[in-house]
Amino acid sequence: MNALNEPVFEVPYYQPTGQECELFEQAWKQHLPMLIKGPTGCGKTRFVAHMAARLKLPLFTVSCHDDLTAADLIGRHLITAGSTVWCDGPLTQAVRTGGICYLDEVVEARKDTTVVLHPLTDDRRILPIERTGEVLHAPDSFMLVVSYNPGYQHVLKTLKPSTRQRFVAMSFDFPPPEVEIGVVQQESGVSAEVAQRLVGLATSLRRLQGYDLEESVSTRLLVYAAKLMAAGMPPRMACLAALVEPLSDESDTIAALQSIVDTQFPA
Amino acid sequence: MNALNEPVFEVPYYQPTGQECELFEQAWKQHLPMLIKGPTGCGKTRFVAHMAARLKLPLFTVSCHDDLTAADLIGRHLITAGSTVWCDGPLTQAVRTGGICYLDEVVEARKDTTVVLHPLTDDRRILPIERTGEVLHAPDSFMLVVSYNPGYQHVLKTLKPSTRQRFVAMSFDFPPPEVEIGVVQQESGVSAEVAQRLVGLATSLRRLQGYDLEESVSTRLLVYAAKLMAAGMPPRMACLAALVEPLSDESDTIAALQSIVDTQFPA
Amino acid sequence: MNALNEPVFEVPYYQPTGQECELFEQAWKQHLPMLIKGPTGCGKTRFVAHMAARLKLPLFTVSCHDDLTAADLIGRHLITAGSTVWCDGPLTQAVRTGGICYLDEVVEARKDTTVVLHPLTDDRRILPIERTGEVLHAPDSFMLVVSYNPGYQHVLKTLKPSTRQRFVAMSFDFPPPEVEIGVVQQESGVSAEVAQRLVGLATSLRRLQGYDLEESVSTRLLVYAAKLMAAGMPPRMACLAALVEPLSDESDTIAALQSIVDTQFPA
Amino acid sequence: MNALNEPVFEVPYYQPTGQECELFEQAWKQHLPMLIKGPTGCGKTRFVAHMAARLKLPLFTVSCHDDLTAADLIGRHLITAGSTVWCDGPLTQAVRTGGICYLDEVVEARKDTTVVLHPLTDDRRILPIERTGEVLHAPDSFMLVVSYNPGYQHVLKTLKPSTRQRFVAMSFDFPPPEVEIGVVQQESGVSAEVAQRLVGLATSLRRLQGYDLEESVSTRLLVYAAKLMAAGMPPRMACLAALVEPLSDESDTIAALQSIVDTQFPA
Amino acid sequence: MNALNEPVFEVPYYQPTGQECELFEQAWKQHLPMLIKGPTGCGKTRFVAHMAARLKLPLFTVSCHDDLTAADLIGRHLITAGSTVWCDGPLTQAVRTGGICYLDEVVEARKDTTVVLHPLTDDRRILPIERTGEVLHAPDSFMLVVSYNPGYQHVLKTLKPSTRQRFVAMSFDFPPPEVEIGVVQQESGVSAEVAQRLVGLATSLRRLQGYDLEESVSTRLLVYAAKLMAAGMPPRMACLAALVEPLSDESDTIAALQSIVDTQFPA
Amino acid sequence: MNALNEPVFEVPYYQPTGQECELFEQAWKQHLPMLIKGPTGCGKTRFVAHMAARLKLPLFTVSCHDDLTAADLIGRHLITAGSTVWCDGPLTQAVRTGGICYLDEVVEARKDTTVVLHPLTDDRRILPIERTGEVLHAPDSFMLVVSYNPGYQHVLKTLKPSTRQRFVAMSFDFPPPEVEIGVVQQESGVSAEVAQRLVGLATSLRRLQGYDLEESVSTRLLVYAAKLMAAGMPPRMACLAALVEPLSDESDTIAALQSIVDTQFPA
Repeated sequence: MNALNEPVFEVPYYQPTGQECELFEQAWKQHLPMLIKGPTGCGKTRFVAHMAARLKLPLFTVSCHDDLTAADLIGRHLITAGSTVWCDGPLTQAVRTGGICYLDEVVEARKDTTVVLHPLTDDRRILPIERTGEVLHAPDSFMLVVSYNPGYQHVLKTLKPSTRQRFVAMSFDFPPPEVEIGVVQQESGVSAEVAQRLVGLATSLRRLQGYDLEESVSTRLLVYAAKLMAAGMPPRMACLAALVEPLSDESDTIAALQSIVDTQFPA
Repeated sequence: MNALNEPVFEVPYYQPTGQECELFEQAWKQHLPMLIKGPTGCGKTRFVAHMAARLKLPLFTVSCHDDLTAADLIGRHLITAGSTVWCDGPLTQAVRTGGICYLDEVVEARKDTTVVLHPLTDDRRILPIERTGEVLHAPDSFMLVVSYNPGYQHVLKTLKPSTRQRFVAMSFDFPPPEVEIGVVQQESGVSAEVAQRLVGLATSLRRLQGYDLEESVSTRLLVYAAKLMAAGMPPRMACLAALVEPLSDESDTIAALQSIVDTQFPA
Repeated sequence: MNALNEPVFEVPYYQPTGQECELFEQAWKQHLPMLIKGPTGCGKTRFVAHMAARLKLPLFTVSCHDDLTAADLIGRHLITAGSTVWCDGPLTQAVRTGGICYLDEVVEARKDTTVVLHPLTDDRRILPIERTGEVLHAPDSFMLVVSYNPGYQHVLKTLKPSTRQRFVAMSFDFPPPEVEIGVVQQESGVSAEVAQRLVGLATSLRRLQGYDLEESVSTRLLVYAAKLMAAGMPPRMACLAALVEPLSDESDTIAALQSIVDTQFPA
Repeated sequence: MNALNEPVFEVPYYQPTGQECELFEQAWKQHLPMLIKGPTGCGKTRFVAHMAARLKLPLFTVSCHDDLTAADLIGRHLITAGSTVWCDGPLTQAVRTGGICYLDEVVEARKDTTVVLHPLTDDRRILPIERTGEVLHAPDSFMLVVSYNPGYQHVLKTLKPSTRQRFVAMSFDFPPPEVEIGVVQQESGVSAEVAQRLVGLATSLRRLQGYDLEESVSTRLLVYAAKLMAAGMPPRMACLAALVEPLSDESDTIAALQSIVDTQFPA
Repeated sequence: MNALNEPVFEVPYYQPTGQECELFEQAWKQHLPMLIKGPTGCGKTRFVAHMAARLKLPLFTVSCHDDLTAADLIGRHLITAGSTVWCDGPLTQAVRTGGICYLDEVVEARKDTTVVLHPLTDDRRILPIERTGEVLHAPDSFMLVVSYNPGYQHVLKTLKPSTRQRFVAMSFDFPPPEVEIGVVQQESGVSAEVAQRLVGLATSLRRLQGYDLEESVSTRLLVYAAKLMAAGMPPRMACLAALVEPLSDESDTIAALQSIVDTQFPA
Repeated sequence: MNALNEPVFEVPYYQPTGQECELFEQAWKQHLPMLIKGPTGCGKTRFVAHMAARLKLPLFTVSCHDDLTAADLIGRHLITAGSTVWCDGPLTQAVRTGGICYLDEVVEARKDTTVVLHPLTDDRRILPIERTGEVLHAPDSFMLVVSYNPGYQHVLKTLKPSTRQRFVAMSFDFPPPEVEIGVVQQESGVSAEVAQRLVGLATSLRRLQGYDLEESVSTRLLVYAAKLMAAGMPPRMACLAALVEPLSDESDTIAALQSIVDTQFPA
C-alpha cells in the first residue's frame, strides 16, 4: 500500500486537450466523485496532479493492486518497536486534510475497498473508521478520484455497477500530435524537429494496436526515448530500448516495429 | 466493514410509488424481517432511511462485500494503543438500541454472516455474542432489512433458500416519471422543464438495457447531471459525464448513447 | 458460530405427522445419533426443540456454514480485555450438561468438524478437548442431532459415507394439510377459513417446484402471510410479500405465482 | 484434531475372518508399518482396537480430515490462561509410550503430515520434534497403522506412491455371514434368528452397490437396527431408520430398498 | 518440516551400480550442487547417506511437501514456554556445519524455497538469514543435494528451468538383479535362493508398470517381504502383504499380481 | 525473500556482446529503470553485477518467487529474542545507499510489489515506507533493474502493461561463440580447445530447443561440464551429468542428446 502525501509546490505541466479541467473543477465544486478512464501512460496521473495543484489541494495517490484492502486505505494500528500507534491511511489523510484521494487502477483493488468508498460517494460523504470509533465528515474540499484502463480489464475485475454509478466519468486518450510534441519537448529537452518525428513514429505504432500489440506506445515511453537521444544516444538505439522492447517479446514483432522506426529515423 | 450510526434529524425526502411504506411498517410491527430487491440507484437506501426516520428508529447501514464476516457485523475486541476494548458491530448496535439494521447487497457477504442472521429472523429474535458470552434479545422495535440487486447476482452468490425464506420481500424499480421528475428537481435545483427532459432521456436510455448495457441510468446519475447543469455546465457535456460515460466503455455504445442525448438536448 | 443455550420453559407446539417422536425417543434411549432430512422451513428445528422440551433436555442449536470449524463447536480460549478465558462451544456445553446438540445444515460445515463428531457417534461417546487436555465422556442423556436439506446440496458438499453411516436417519416433509392448517392458525391467529385457504394455496404452489422454482413455499412463509393478514393487510398484498416475492426474482414467474394467489384470494 | 489415549482394560470383541491377526502381529514384531484398506463400517477400527488390547499396547486414534496438519499429530505449544505449555499430539504420545498410532482415513490429511510419517516408517524409526528440539527414537513396541477406504477416494486425495510403498498392506471387507451374525447378536442382544434375517437383508442390499448406492449397509448400521428392534421397535420401522434412510436421499431408491426390507421382515 | 541431524557412525551399506560415487565426490569437490532423479524406493536416500558417511560429513535430510516453506529450511524464532529462541532449520545447520543438506522430492516444496537455494547454488554460495541479519558463507565442505521422481510429477509441480540448470544431475533406477539380491539378503537375512526368487518376482512385476500399475515394486518392499518370510510367514502371504496390496486397490489387478507371485512361490 | 548486500571489491568478468553496457549506463544517468529479458543462465545476473561494480554501486539482488510480497522488498519489524527491530528490505537498502536493486524474474512476484515499484519508476522516484512513516527520496545514483525470461512465462504471470511501460528494455541471449569460449575458459580453467568443443556442442544442442526441450543448455552448465573435465572426469561423463541430465527426464531425449555429445567428444 502506498500512502503518499505529496505537497505540491508548483503546478505540474499539463496541456489540456478538451474541457477536462472544467469538468473536473465543476465535479469538485458539486462534491461529485470522478472516474477517469484511459490507456496506460496517457497522462491521467499527471492530469490529477495538475488539477490538485491548480486547486491548491493536497494529493494522495494510491496505486491499487490485487491485495489492496480497506485497511490499506483507511489505516491501521502499527506494532512498532515498543509501542502501538494508529497510522492513517491515504484515504483518511485525504479526508482529514480536505484533499484529493486518487485511486489509480481502482479495479485491481480487493472488493472490501468498495465499502469504504460508498459512504464517501453519496450525499453522506462520511468515512467511518471502525477501529478507532471515529466517523469523519469529509470537508467540502475533499474529492475522490478513481481511474482504470478499459483496454486492460481482467474478466473478473470490473467495477460493480453499484459502485460505478456513483461517479461522474470521463475518457482520456493519448493527446493530439501538436500537444504531445509539446509534452515531449518540455520533458526531455529535444528539439521540436526530433519531438515531431517521435510523435509521428508513435502515431504509426499506435495504428498496430489490436493487431500485434496488447497496448501501444505511451507518451511516457516517447519521453524516455527523447531523454536517451538528448543524452547523445543514436536515435535507432534509443527507440529500440524505449519504444520497441517494452512493447513486445516476440522477435518477429520487434523486427516489424523496428522497421517502422527506420522510416522515421533512417540509419 | 462499515459501522454507521446515523442519527436522523429530519425525514429524508422520499416519494412513494406504491404501498411500500405500509408493507414496511406492517412487517416492522409484526417483527418480520424484510428483503428489498431492485436495481442500482433506484432508491432502496433512501427508502430505508426514510422509513427509519418516519418510525423514529436509529439506522445502521452496512454495505456488504466479499470479505464481510460475522465479526464485522457483531463486533470484536480491538487492540488499540495500550488497551483492549470491545467494539460493537453495527448489527449489535442496532439490536441494543432497537433500531433498524440495513444490510445493503447482502448476497455479497461471506456465508458465516447467515449464522448470525438466522436466530434474529425467526421467533427467537436473539443475537448470541459468543466472544463476550452475551445473548441479546432484540427489542420489539428492532428490524432487520436486507437488499440485493437481482439483475447483478454472481453465479456463486445467491441467498440460500433457507435464509431467503426468512424474509418478507418486495421489489423496487425506478420511480414512474412524474415521481422521478420531482426527485431530480428536489435534489438538484433545476427547473421542472429540465428535470422533465432528463427523465425523458432516462426513459429512452433505459429501453436499451439488456441490449447494449449491463445496467441503465439510475436516478442518482440523473441528479448528478442536473447538478452539473444547475452549476452552469452545458447540458450535453453534463449528460456525457454523468449519464453516458458511467454506463459504458465502448466507443460505439458511447456514441449511440450520446446521440440519444442529442435528441433531448440538441446542441 | 452460534453457541446458543436455550433453557426451554414450555414445550413448543408441534403436531406429529407420523412416528417421528417415537423414533427420536428410542434413538435417544439407545444412545444413537440422529440425522433429519427435509426441505427448508418444514419444521425440523421446531421438532427438535419440541423433543428437547418433552425429554426435559437443554438444547444447543448451531446453524452450520462454510466457515464453521471444530473450534467453533468445541470452544476456544478467548482473549478478552485483560485476561484469557476458556469458552466452551455449544457441542461441549451439550456434552457437559447432557443435553441435545443440534447441528442445522451440517453439510455446510467445514470438514474438520467431522473429527469431533466421530468419537461422539460410536460406542466411545467421548469428546476430547485437545486445548484443555480434557476428555469428556458424554452422559447417557446426551444426544447429537444433525440435519440437512437433500434438495439443496452443493455438489461439493455432502456428508461423507463414513460420517453418514453413523446416524439413524429420517425424512421430513411439509405437514399434511390438516396439520398445517392447525399450525398456521396457532402461530398467527387467523381464522380456520383463512388458514385453510392459505394451505390450499401452498399446495398449488408446491406443485410447481422443480418446474419454475428452486424451492417452494414453506410453512414459515404461510405463517408470515397469515400474520400480515391478521394485522389487517389485504390478502393479495400479504401473499405477494410473504409467499411470492421470497420465491422468485423473475417477473414472469412472479406474475404466474400471483395469478395462482388470485384463485384463492380473488380481489 | 483428535488426540485420544484409550487405556484398554478388556480386549474388544473381534471375530477374525482370515489371518489378519497373524499378519498384524508379524508386522508389529518386524517393525513394519501397516496399511489397512476397506469400506466404511467393516470393522477396521475395531480390529485395530482388538489387536492393541491383545498386544497390551496403548492405542492413539486420529480421524484424519482436510485440515489435519503435522502439528496436530506432533503437538504444539498451547496458550492457555496465564501460561504456555507444550502439549504432545497423539503421534508423539504413541511414540513416547511405545503404543500404536492409528490414522483413520489417512488420505484425508494434509500433505505436510507425510513428512512426519516418513522417518517413522523406514529403518530410522525416529520422530523429530522441531519445536522442542527433541528427536524421539520409537521404542520397539511402537507401531504406525493407517487406513483408508479405496471405494471413496477423492480424485485429488490419494496416498503418494512414495508414502504408500512404506507400508505392509491388507484389504478388509464385510465379514462373512456367519461371523457378522455373531457380531450383531453380541452387540445388540437380539436373537440369533433376527440377527440372521438382518444379515440376510444386508447381503441383498449390498448387491445393489455400484448400481443405485454409493456405499452399502455396514455392520454398524445392522447393529443400530438390531438395537432399535431389541428395544421393541417394529422391524420395518427400525430398518427404515437404520438401514434405508442413511443410504439414500432419493425417494425412488428409498422405496426400492424398503421393498427389499419387506421380503425379510414382512408387515 | 523435518530437521534431522543424523550423526553417522558407520557407513551404511550401499552397492554402486555405476560411477555414481565418483560423480558425487567430484561434484562435491567442485562445489557443484547435485540433482538425483529416480523412482520411489530405488535407493536415492540410502545413496546420499552412504556418501555422507564416506565423506565424513553430517547429513541433514528434509522430506519436502506441499507446505514446506523457506522458513522451514532456514529456521525461525520459536515461542516456547517463557522465552523466544532462534532455531536453525536443517539447511542452516548444514551450512553452519559444512555438511550435506538433502531435499528429498524437492518439487513438492513451495516456490519460496527456491529463493534460498539460488544464492547457495551459484558461485556466491551464501545463505542470507533475513530474520537474524546473518549472511552465512557456505564452507567448502557444504553440498546441496536434491532429488525427485520424474515418473510421479504433478502437472503443476516441476522444477523451474532457472532452478534446475543450477545442478549437476544423474538418473537412478532399481539396481541390477545381482546387486538387488545382495541388498535383500543383507537387509533381511533370507537365504540367497529366496532373495533370488524375490528379485526374479520383482523383475516380472516391474514389466507391468505403465500398463496396470502407477509405480512398481521397490527394493524396500522386497526387503519387507523378505523380513516377513525370515520371521516364518508363508511366502505367498508375505508377498501379498508386502508386494501386491501396496501396489493396487483394484481386485482384478491384485489377483493378476498374485498369480505372478504364484509362479515364483507356488503353494 | 533474499536481502543481499554484496559489497563488490572487484569487477566481475563480463564480455559485452553489443552496446548493452552503454545503454545501461545511459539509463542510469537519465534515472530510467531498466528491464532485461532473456533465457535462463545467459548472463543477466552477471551483467548486472558487472555494471554495478563498474559504476561503483552497491548491488541488492532479489530472486522473486510466488510468495514475494511488498514487505519482503521494503522491510518489516522483526520480532526477535527479547525485542522488536525494524529491518530494511533489499529495495529500501538500495534506495538508502543509492545502489542498484535487481529483481530477478520479477514476473514471479506477487502483485502488491508493483505498488512499491511504481512511485520509484516515474519522475517522483520516491519510496514510501508506510510502516515507519518515512518517505525516502531515491538519490541520483539509485537504479531499479528487473528481469524475466520471456520463454518461460506462466499464462497468469506477466508484467502488467502499466508496469512494463515504466522501463527501458533490452533483450539478452546466449553470447556469440567466440565470447562464450572465453567465458568457459575463464571460469573453469580448461584449454581453449576443450572450451571450443563445449561451445560447439552447446550450439548443436540449442538448435533442438522448441522441438524436444523446454529450455536449452546455458552458459552456466557449460562451465559446470568444463569444471568436471578440468578435475579429470572423462568428457562424456561430465557432459552427461552437466549438460544432458539437467535438460530432460525422458530416456529417449537423453539418448539423443548424448549421441550429439558423442560427435564432439568421441569415446
